[in-house]
Amino acid sequence: MRKKTILGVFGFGCVGQGLYNVLHQTRGFNAEIKKICIKHPEKKRPIDSSFFTTNRDDILNDPEINVVVELIDDVDAAYEIVSSSLKKKKAVVSANKKMIAENFPALLRLQQQYDTPFLYEASCCASIPVIRNLEEYYDNDLLTSVEGILNGSTNYILTHIFDNNKPFDEALKDAQRLGYAESDPSLDVKGLDPKYKLLIILVHAFGIILRPDEIFNYGIQNLKDADIRYAREKNARIKLIAKCSKIDNRVYAYCMPRFIPLSDTLNKVTYEYNGLLLEGAFAEHQFFMGKGAGGNATGSAVLSDISALTYDYRYEYKKLSQKLNHSFTQEIELEIFVSYNGETSPDPADFTGISVKHESPGFNYMIGKINLAKLIRATWREDPAVSIVLTENNF
Amino acid sequence: MRKKTILGVFGFGCVGQGLYNVLHQTRGFNAEIKKICIKHPEKKRPIDSSFFTTNRDDILNDPEINVVVELIDDVDAAYEIVSSSLKKKKAVVSANKKMIAENFPALLRLQQQYDTPFLYEASCCASIPVIRNLEEYYDNDLLTSVEGILNGSTNYILTHIFDNNKPFDEALKDAQRLGYAESDPSLDVKGLDPKYKLLIILVHAFGIILRPDEIFNYGIQNLKDADIRYAREKNARIKLIAKCSKIDNRVYAYCMPRFIPLSDTLNKVTYEYNGLLLEGAFAEHQFFMGKGAGGNATGSAVLSDISALTYDYRYEYKKLSQKLNHSFTQEIELEIFVSYNGETSPDPADFTGISVKHESPGFNYMIGKINLAKLIRATWREDPAVSIVLTENNF
Repeated sequence: MRKKTILGVFGFGCVGQGLYNVLHQTRGFNAEIKKICIKHPEKKRPIDSSFFTTNRDDILNDPEINVVVELIDDVDAAYEIVSSSLKKKKAVVSANKKMIAENFPALLRLQQQYDTPFLYEASCCASIPVIRNLEEYYDNDLLTSVEGILNGSTNYILTHIFDNNKPFDEALKDAQRLGYAESDPSLDVKGLDPKYKLLIILVHAFGIILRPDEIFNYGIQNLKDADIRYAREKNARIKLIAKCSKIDNRVYAYCMPRFIPLSDTLNKVTYEYNGLLLEGAFAEHQFFMGKGAGGNATGSAVLSDISALTYDYRYEYKKLSQKLNHSFTQEIELEIFVSYNGETSPDPADFTGISVKHESPGFNYMIGKINLAKLIRATWREDPAVSIVLTENNF
Repeated sequence: MRKKTILGVFGFGCVGQGLYNVLHQTRGFNAEIKKICIKHPEKKRPIDSSFFTTNRDDILNDPEINVVVELIDDVDAAYEIVSSSLKKKKAVVSANKKMIAENFPALLRLQQQYDTPFLYEASCCASIPVIRNLEEYYDNDLLTSVEGILNGSTNYILTHIFDNNKPFDEALKDAQRLGYAESDPSLDVKGLDPKYKLLIILVHAFGIILRPDEIFNYGIQNLKDADIRYAREKNARIKLIAKCSKIDNRVYAYCMPRFIPLSDTLNKVTYEYNGLLLEGAFAEHQFFMGKGAGGNATGSAVLSDISALTYDYRYEYKKLSQKLNHSFTQEIELEIFVSYNGETSPDPADFTGISVKHESPGFNYMIGKINLAKLIRATWREDPAVSIVLTENNF
């Protein structure tokens, strides 16, 4: 008989309540929530007030609590909670991609130093089992690429725009109302949230640890109606794609919008769903799709981590320990579509080749090949009147 | 430092060679093949002859060999090898769905009695991680349904028929030549192979152990050109679907062809790929797609089991131990399309309702609702002139 899991939970927002729901509707699982630490005791809560505290030490100093679940928004406070818990040898489960991506090296050291597991399956694609599969199943597969739609909120917005002709702002408000968007929506629409997830995937797929500022992210906030129309004319939708891929020993990564032809598998990923394509030498193409946001979907992934802790599961960071000597590069060529107004236009000298240049009243665009490192340095790309979408011709 | 894995392999066909390839191209994995037991020493082999033996005891009695990999066709011999290995406390990895499905209770007892793990991830959907995910990840999800395309060979045949207008026989020969078909193709086309996989999934998804003869399978061998044309007219393809699903505490299961609308996610599963849809109370819809056949894809799944054994992984059969009290039922209503020639026709009295009856020169069909248990007992369904396809209206 395994030791009973006694949980201390930080945060009782969308995911915290999802965890509570999931935990109370499943059977045969020997775990209970003892305390929930919250910031706003005045808020009305759907469960008994005896669960709640505003004092973090009621959880951190309770020797009976053996698993800490961190589900708060504030990144600094979250890191403080996770590191304090690990130092007290309490196993931790977190869904906080930003906190993990920004503090990865320190979190790795703490796990090793205090010999205590830290699991974060829910941080990547909510309900889709990504991290444990990358660790356990693709351990001996020669992975070459992981790419997909890692942000439920922007995918929800883009689906509404393309399928239901909704304006951007209205679609964003819907996503927020349904709990699919981060409380700061710029994390989603600027492509930061999927970048944090990509950083975590890079560790478990390729053994590469990077800082968030080392990966290029370009969001969907500058997309114009004309860009949407252009995509429709080309029988495509636009999706925000996070990708990391390996060429020989060099790994590149980015998070950018891309035209996805209607016939493409990724076009099956609609609304708040996430989808992930893996390519490997042996398993070849694999595709995973599931809910990428929402309290119950994320709560169920958190619970699967809590369940894994009952048999002392911990990430072994196999790709890190294999010393694969992969190096990170931004020296790759991408083909991009750039639309712009009359005042700001992309500098043709930045491109290695331009295949299309179109100018018409109200809609100018060009399609050309550009080195990713050069695109990152280009100042014209920062103009809100410019919008950039990867063409479907990118490997 | 973990103990080195020394493998004894039975069989060196498509999957055995795939395992050899995968193992020799991956790094950081501390395992080697010591002996391979084969039946035909006279066959030319692509690797050094010192690997081979025809004497099973060279593997079973070698104390250095700690993992036995069973990859042969003969079901009785395979069971004998697996059970002998477990009795000698050698961990076993197998990809033999038929052997596992036919001997499940005995194999479960042997694992418990000799406290030795038996893993068989490759038996279900080759490269798609199914069993370990059902065990580990959907442990606390209230699963309601698992369905999909579990047979790469028939899917390859049906894709060729629908997309490339190939005749059935030619498509089957192609599948065999490429190593996607079982050596006895009737295992594939009659729906037996996916039924064996469904039996294994039933254990890990719902904790239900059944004999193969307890699940209805209906294959694709009776499909006529007129049925294919009918599907095309309705903007659908026909796919062989294996499904198990739960209504309250009752679980039903079957393996039958179904019309799949072109817009359906399952239509993205083409050629030798498999695809699996999971439905649960919390994670809701999830979809997995990957290569369901072929030496390297299957070999890579075998290697992932070998890798899992290095950290003493074993299936805990959580759904069995949770004592879920699910009962198996065939008392469900299905809507089916039945085509027939003039001589044999389905008995209308077997149906609870007939919505369409069509008679024309050379093509008669009806669409109606029928209880699965009644369909199983109906003698008309055994006539080769009759072909049955589930409509898309089945839950």
